[in-house]
Amino acid sequence: MKQIVMGILGVGRIGSLHADNVIGMPDIRLKSVADPFLEAEEWRSRGIEASLDPGLVIDDDEIEAVLICSSTPTHADLIERAALAGKHIFCEKPIALDPDRVRQTLAVTAEAGVKLQIGFNRRFDPSFSKVRQAVVEGEVGDVYLVKIVARDPAPPPIEYVQDSGGMFLDMTIHDFDMVRFLSGSEVEEVQALGAVLIDPAIGQAGDVDTAVVLMKLSNGALAVIENSRKAVFGYDQRVEVLGSRGGIEAFNELPSQVRVRSGEGERSENPHYFFLERYRQSYVDELETFVTCIREDQEPPVSGIDGLIPLLIGMAATTSMRENRPVRVPEPAL
Amino acid sequence: MKQIVMGILGVGRIGSLHADNVIGMPDIRLKSVADPFLEAEEWRSRGIEASLDPGLVIDDDEIEAVLICSSTPTHADLIERAALAGKHIFCEKPIALDPDRVRQTLAVTAEAGVKLQIGFNRRFDPSFSKVRQAVVEGEVGDVYLVKIVARDPAPPPIEYVQDSGGMFLDMTIHDFDMVRFLSGSEVEEVQALGAVLIDPAIGQAGDVDTAVVLMKLSNGALAVIENSRKAVFGYDQRVEVLGSRGGIEAFNELPSQVRVRSGEGERSENPHYFFLERYRQSYVDELETFVTCIREDQEPPVSGIDGLIPLLIGMAATTSMRENRPVRVPEPAL
Amino acid sequence: MKQIVMGILGVGRIGSLHADNVIGMPDIRLKSVADPFLEAEEWRSRGIEASLDPGLVIDDDEIEAVLICSSTPTHADLIERAALAGKHIFCEKPIALDPDRVRQTLAVTAEAGVKLQIGFNRRFDPSFSKVRQAVVEGEVGDVYLVKIVARDPAPPPIEYVQDSGGMFLDMTIHDFDMVRFLSGSEVEEVQALGAVLIDPAIGQAGDVDTAVVLMKLSNGALAVIENSRKAVFGYDQRVEVLGSRGGIEAFNELPSQVRVRSGEGERSENPHYFFLERYRQSYVDELETFVTCIREDQEPPVSGIDGLIPLLIGMAATTSMRENRPVRVPEPAL
Amino acid sequence: MKQIVMGILGVGRIGSLHADNVIGMPDIRLKSVADPFLEAEEWRSRGIEASLDPGLVIDDDEIEAVLICSSTPTHADLIERAALAGKHIFCEKPIALDPDRVRQTLAVTAEAGVKLQIGFNRRFDPSFSKVRQAVVEGEVGDVYLVKIVARDPAPPPIEYVQDSGGMFLDMTIHDFDMVRFLSGSEVEEVQALGAVLIDPAIGQAGDVDTAVVLMKLSNGALAVIENSRKAVFGYDQRVEVLGSRGGIEAFNELPSQVRVRSGEGERSENPHYFFLERYRQSYVDELETFVTCIREDQEPPVSGIDGLIPLLIGMAATTSMRENRPVRVPEPAL
Repeated sequence: MKQIVMGILGVGRIGSLHADNVIGMPDIRLKSVADPFLEAEEWRSRGIEASLDPGLVIDDDEIEAVLICSSTPTHADLIERAALAGKHIFCEKPIALDPDRVRQTLAVTAEAGVKLQIGFNRRFDPSFSKVRQAVVEGEVGDVYLVKIVARDPAPPPIEYVQDSGGMFLDMTIHDFDMVRFLSGSEVEEVQALGAVLIDPAIGQAGDVDTAVVLMKLSNGALAVIENSRKAVFGYDQRVEVLGSRGGIEAFNELPSQVRVRSGEGERSENPHYFFLERYRQSYVDELETFVTCIREDQEPPVSGIDGLIPLLIGMAATTSMRENRPVRVPEPAL
Repeated sequence: MKQIVMGILGVGRIGSLHADNVIGMPDIRLKSVADPFLEAEEWRSRGIEASLDPGLVIDDDEIEAVLICSSTPTHADLIERAALAGKHIFCEKPIALDPDRVRQTLAVTAEAGVKLQIGFNRRFDPSFSKVRQAVVEGEVGDVYLVKIVARDPAPPPIEYVQDSGGMFLDMTIHDFDMVRFLSGSEVEEVQALGAVLIDPAIGQAGDVDTAVVLMKLSNGALAVIENSRKAVFGYDQRVEVLGSRGGIEAFNELPSQVRVRSGEGERSENPHYFFLERYRQSYVDELETFVTCIREDQEPPVSGIDGLIPLLIGMAATTSMRENRPVRVPEPAL
Repeated sequence: MKQIVMGILGVGRIGSLHADNVIGMPDIRLKSVADPFLEAEEWRSRGIEASLDPGLVIDDDEIEAVLICSSTPTHADLIERAALAGKHIFCEKPIALDPDRVRQTLAVTAEAGVKLQIGFNRRFDPSFSKVRQAVVEGEVGDVYLVKIVARDPAPPPIEYVQDSGGMFLDMTIHDFDMVRFLSGSEVEEVQALGAVLIDPAIGQAGDVDTAVVLMKLSNGALAVIENSRKAVFGYDQRVEVLGSRGGIEAFNELPSQVRVRSGEGERSENPHYFFLERYRQSYVDELETFVTCIREDQEPPVSGIDGLIPLLIGMAATTSMRENRPVRVPEPAL
Repeated sequence: MKQIVMGILGVGRIGSLHADNVIGMPDIRLKSVADPFLEAEEWRSRGIEASLDPGLVIDDDEIEAVLICSSTPTHADLIERAALAGKHIFCEKPIALDPDRVRQTLAVTAEAGVKLQIGFNRRFDPSFSKVRQAVVEGEVGDVYLVKIVARDPAPPPIEYVQDSGGMFLDMTIHDFDMVRFLSGSEVEEVQALGAVLIDPAIGQAGDVDTAVVLMKLSNGALAVIENSRKAVFGYDQRVEVLGSRGGIEAFNELPSQVRVRSGEGERSENPHYFFLERYRQSYVDELETFVTCIREDQEPPVSGIDGLIPLLIGMAATTSMRENRPVRVPEPAL
């Protein structure tokens, strides 16, 4: 089987993770990376070309596919350039924070006829994908309710909060995608409630740190997402679906299965500390899926439109919270 | 220690349960029961006086305390009659479905100077009371969020639905009480979403069978209750509190601790089938608390006002769901 | 349904427990108790006759059945006296520590034609009886292995150790019964290993505090029991059966289902502290079974021979440990 | 940091696994592999030299360390050849089935002054290593008991059984190592009991398929290992340590954290199917440890003597089972 030759644009935290994963995959060859801040020597010692300029990757005829892992404001431009150069594209979410800009990008990509997969990696988590599979196979029957708990171990730096677009766009956006993925249904209306309970500085930056979002889905079911910026016991990521034939719940994954018993009770480990550990396998699996889609000329399972819709839901949730009223989610209207 | 002499008004399902519990308690003597439908012989064979007329219990000078377990529409009258007769009163919830009628009853009881305890038995559940204790002792720190899951194993008869006052008043009312109990805070505003997903007949009767209620609490925290009329795997009753120092969750209680392993995976038992089994111990403990309050002249921990407030929240939630907007909960204003 | 009239001989810790349970059962009337150390007034205030002399109970013609809960050395005599007086008998284990004395007692009881049930209460534990049921129904297929963990929270007083007949006869005897009950098979050979690790005084008293007993069963399967006099985290009582079609395991029962999450991990409760709490339900169920056997003229499911065999196994285990060799268990040869 | 150049001798199932792991490690360069049955083209397409002759690897001056993953009968010879060539050696267990041959090999290795690490990978399992750490840190206090459950999902081919040296040498040998590792103590005496319950062909081949081994440890504690060739629910691998201050138990690792709830109860996944999945991380971690030991000139934590002692225990257990008597484990006497 011929190896697929890849390049990576942006090798910060998430780009480096993808690079390490790709190096271990026998059916991919990572040829080059580009990042304005990279340490070229380190990459070259591993046999990988390294440059500061993404153009050197995009214009390399040998490269078939690029992973875009640079900062959010660069995503749309890089997608368009790569599409015009005929590369298949895997892009971290979000494409952009402006829906019109996203629509424009999706049009360019469609026109170019290249694959585009968005990095909603949690769909590939072994537990969450099993939940989805159970729903698809009818194990829970008709879906009544989708519940998601997503809590970070600690709030991000306040600078991040100031530029993130707000909690619903930087954090809950993953959960909006998960509601669509697990239910197989669209979100029609949201009612969001937020509070500043963890750090007043987050409120001063115009954001909230604790939120609950209630949703009506197009199949009539309800969904509820609960987010917190701080769960001192670690990265708390659980989903549950209730339906006419039963329920299914995905609990946290723990670093080990050890339980210690003492006079104080039985103690098990906390969940993995944060997303890189918790969703480690999902990052591998989403790329293998991307490669399979290229090889077998299939549509990637997380498409450009899957990148647009959670943005629209997040914007509706933000309005709902600010105006304290239910808000309908607009059609994506590509 | 002198035994406290008791009577029970209403010995249907819940009254009989209380009777069985009381008979086993060495510090209580159950002298008589009254119920228009009782089988007098059965009670007399156990040494208990039995009559069709509650007056015979209320007017018995030897009886110090009555348990009111008759149908809801009779509660307020019986409380007032018992109070005027100087009996201490334990009454199943709700006192009445009309807040003004409740206020009137509470005034009569206060005037009479007797103890009044409302049957929010779940506060005495060993798991839920441990959650409350952890909150009180600061184990979770400042409360950020209270979450309650309460699902019945199957919908009630449609006749029950037609007269119950609606899901929020017959089912969620326990959870409204639990939010107040666990958080130690009052509900200020509710946003309720309901759906008819299980049985269209429930919709035709003007009610819903699936609901989520979002709440703002007076201490700034959020709360969310999720209810369903049908979880085919049994009576699903869980609570969770998240706070600045950690979290605490009460899982379902199972009939046995057995797990069966086969090629299909590991199987544990379903939760207890319904409330009589699940909350068995709480019914014992609430009565022992009531007796202690009488004996030591203390205020019962579930007072008349604790009976009124969940009614006001339930009415606000009903309005919120019908009008699809947030609704503030009025002050109880006794 | 006519109530069965009962008396209790011996109302120490376990006799009092039975008394409380019996008082709450509508189909039993506890008429009298006898114990050289009882507080007569307390019993009489509950409407129960009380005397120092067991003869007053045994010779009471109205009494149909007696519960023998006195000290072990009195069991055989009281069984024989009660049998000769035509009473059905429920007796706490062991009947006696001398197998010949046990055989003699069983002969007397058989001759008298009364029911005799031995108090191996753990067979009635909701979890353990579900394990047995799964084995009977073939859920685990052919039994390969039975495993039992039984650990006390703390060693008994050294005086108790000196007179108990040794760990295998006072503690493991319950587990020998459980091996027979769960496997439906007899123990043919034992290999026992013991150690003094917890308290040297136990060794000085000629006993051990930590032990593992390996068994060959008559159906070819293996069994292993592990005992400790001290598990600081509480009363650790678990059983497991492995078979050709799967396995089944009974975990500890916890006082509540609460889990607390903090920076140190997730903490659940310790098991119940000791046997009265842990096996509470089994004490109720064994007596209800006894009453059913009397009423429906059935053989009690824990017969006299079931009281004898574990004694023989315990003696073989003691020899095995002392002589560090496998020892065959003799036939009961009634 | 300079990469360590490695070769692998034997690239069957386990050798290939090590190869994949090593390729992903930035501080190792896998230069060449040798195996009489390998597909040279496949390796060369990944940039790795491949030959049928181990000599080409052993005599390559650039190679600093070799992984010996060939068939057991070749281990001792290859270790000696590699040691004489000055390579550091990682060798899969066992070194040989004859203790004298093992002693000879260890002498050669010691003389050559190279590192030798034995592939008891389970010591590096995240759960088991946490158990060991808890024991070392005194969390369980003085060790009273070590318990190990190790069950395969299905028996190996009968040809394997015929040549394996018997269950205690091919399967339990891992558990003997684990007892030493977890307890920090040596095994002094064993009592083994085996049975043929799964497949009579195993008995005809002179082996057993179900076994329990009881051990006295040099610190006075007891240990018990329970093995089965068939647990239909998957690869069942659990350990438990009980001590004076508490206990610690490592439960099975599951492929996902999903639980499905239906009318039949709550179902969680079975354990991983077999050792490659279950112990995946341990294979990575043992090699990283090996590399660290080379780099920092430390003694590998699983030494040659750690390869010899479990063999002696396994032989003693075999004798104990055959002769139905306790057998002392001889000193390794290098």
